[in-house]
Amino acid sequence: MGDRFDADVYARRLERAAELAVEAGLSAVFVTPGPDFRYLLGSPASTLERLTVLVLSPVGSPVLVVPTMELAAIRESAAGELGIELREWVDGDDPYALACTSLGPLTRIAVSESMPALHLVPLSAAAGVAPELATPVIRRLRMVKDADELAALRRAGDAIDRVHARVHEWLKPGRTEREVAADIAAAIVEEGHTAADFVIVGSGPNGADPHHEVSDRVIGTGETVVVDIGGPVEPGYCSDSTRTYATGPIADEVADAFDALERAQQAAVDAVRPGATAESVDAAARAVLADAGLADRFIHRTGHGIGLSVHEEPYIVAGNTTVLEPGMAFSVEPGIYFPGEWGARIEDIVIVTETGGERLNTRPHGLTRL
Amino acid sequence: MGDRFDADVYARRLERAAELAVEAGLSAVFVTPGPDFRYLLGSPASTLERLTVLVLSPVGSPVLVVPTMELAAIRESAAGELGIELREWVDGDDPYALACTSLGPLTRIAVSESMPALHLVPLSAAAGVAPELATPVIRRLRMVKDADELAALRRAGDAIDRVHARVHEWLKPGRTEREVAADIAAAIVEEGHTAADFVIVGSGPNGADPHHEVSDRVIGTGETVVVDIGGPVEPGYCSDSTRTYATGPIADEVADAFDALERAQQAAVDAVRPGATAESVDAAARAVLADAGLADRFIHRTGHGIGLSVHEEPYIVAGNTTVLEPGMAFSVEPGIYFPGEWGARIEDIVIVTETGGERLNTRPHGLTRL
Repeated sequence: MGDRFDADVYARRLERAAELAVEAGLSAVFVTPGPDFRYLLGSPASTLERLTVLVLSPVGSPVLVVPTMELAAIRESAAGELGIELREWVDGDDPYALACTSLGPLTRIAVSESMPALHLVPLSAAAGVAPELATPVIRRLRMVKDADELAALRRAGDAIDRVHARVHEWLKPGRTEREVAADIAAAIVEEGHTAADFVIVGSGPNGADPHHEVSDRVIGTGETVVVDIGGPVEPGYCSDSTRTYATGPIADEVADAFDALERAQQAAVDAVRPGATAESVDAAARAVLADAGLADRFIHRTGHGIGLSVHEEPYIVAGNTTVLEPGMAFSVEPGIYFPGEWGARIEDIVIVTETGGERLNTRPHGLTRL
Repeated sequence: MGDRFDADVYARRLERAAELAVEAGLSAVFVTPGPDFRYLLGSPASTLERLTVLVLSPVGSPVLVVPTMELAAIRESAAGELGIELREWVDGDDPYALACTSLGPLTRIAVSESMPALHLVPLSAAAGVAPELATPVIRRLRMVKDADELAALRRAGDAIDRVHARVHEWLKPGRTEREVAADIAAAIVEEGHTAADFVIVGSGPNGADPHHEVSDRVIGTGETVVVDIGGPVEPGYCSDSTRTYATGPIADEVADAFDALERAQQAAVDAVRPGATAESVDAAARAVLADAGLADRFIHRTGHGIGLSVHEEPYIVAGNTTVLEPGMAFSVEPGIYFPGEWGARIEDIVIVTETGGERLNTRPHGLTRL
């Protein structure tokens, strides 16, 4: 599997994005390197201080403004095969004016979510209009994955499952969270990811902070340990899976609460189907935990979309009435947190199929005794 | 060495930033996680879809708007010790309105360069005014490093020098650039970096593209290989050093051109001193290469500032009349590029001292025969 899909995939995406820009009444859409850029052109370029920007216009073909010294790398993206107009610039030129050339009158412009202020501020000045977010144009495209994207997400899911299958090799009482995390990070790469994006090892009371990463805490016996890990596989699609482990026997009340969490995660996955809303999946998990008297212990949303970004639309959260469609992919990851004591979380990536939900992570969900 | 410096370092920086904001006539400065945020608060937080923002106001104390679930991590930054006002928010609240509360009338606001459009667009709407870049306020502070920062940059320089000293272990004809790069990346971490930020291995004709990263090209004998590598050391300061290697005997004209490059790099380092301009350092390198008939082969600027970002002010480029001061740190990295044939680059980080320039990278500069 290479760095990107076939060029025709990107040709279709560019065409569809331009159509959606017309529907939205936009004069132009500007996309700098980042997940949207990779989605539209297959280029993993990152944003640098020199402006690279894809300009989509309802009235003409796409244009790519690019520093001369970045040209070789950009030609390896779909832009090279699709014959997109390349507007080169060198230090001393005004790339913002170049990006706004030949677009006609600009009344409403939109920009990619990741565009940094460094570029957004001078681009707004050059365009003479305050930008909107291009989210409505791009989100709809990125949110519903095609077959190639789903295949990439399945590969990512398999790869992170292989890492979880090996966690028992490293997660042992007497070691620090940081030591365990370093071994897991190496395994994330060994198992086929291009990088270890994040490794959370939250032992004992550290498991009660959903955003704890790692620490020098020495892991004890009879503790719960939250292990939340992931990274991208080519061409850029992310894995993200959490399991909670136990270093020896644990108290009955911990086991009971964990059982409720496992049922909540199952209920949320069962709620995934075309036509259901994002918030209904969140509600399904929450209802089970409320029944178990654990409503207050579940202090975050149930999940987030995943694809070229680890966090993207659709968010599985109260208030999000987005209707689920086949091809959407998101995490289902309820957790329970007892500050100062312990915490637990179970997370699978789930894709919406024609009839329901398909888990991309299949490691056992129970509290895995090490 | 921990994640950050002592809290009083950040107290001074916050105070100085507020003073500069007053001088610049700004009503407020908004800084989201990124290098400026880390500079001001010591927090390595990264930007997520939920808004975290430091608000500096000429009329009051700093305020940190932060999602409740990020609070624990933020408290580990200097914000926790300095008693900065924390304004928590949870999903459903409007964090942009919260960030603009109690600031008085907003006539001119500024934002950090890395703030993504995702946050900048709604923040502009909440503030009711188009933002400027906070660069004039923050740049001056970040550009002149204090003793702690210089010590961190020296540690980074030593760490990457140790990696270059081991490159001969892995860089051998018959291996691919990608294989060599993987070994180098591991060594970057082994030698004390928290991550391998970038690893360029440009062999033979690939060395002629200054932005080539790696490929599956098999390295041949008698080739030049550009190795440009770096990463951060705690608390976030970056290394960046390039050496060019040769896999066996090379042609006389390659050796001659490389000698000119080595003299150009030396001339640029010799031009570093307080009172000189950034562009004069660039001109010094360029003059030597022009004398050798290689002016057209040097197709990029001579260098970039370095600190918490790999690329930051001051840029060593024609047109930049910034006057060098003790404490500034930047790369000096002229290169020569022969498309389709070969390329070479020599890069050291140099800091401006009271009397001249100090190289932080001390590996031999010549074409290292393997």
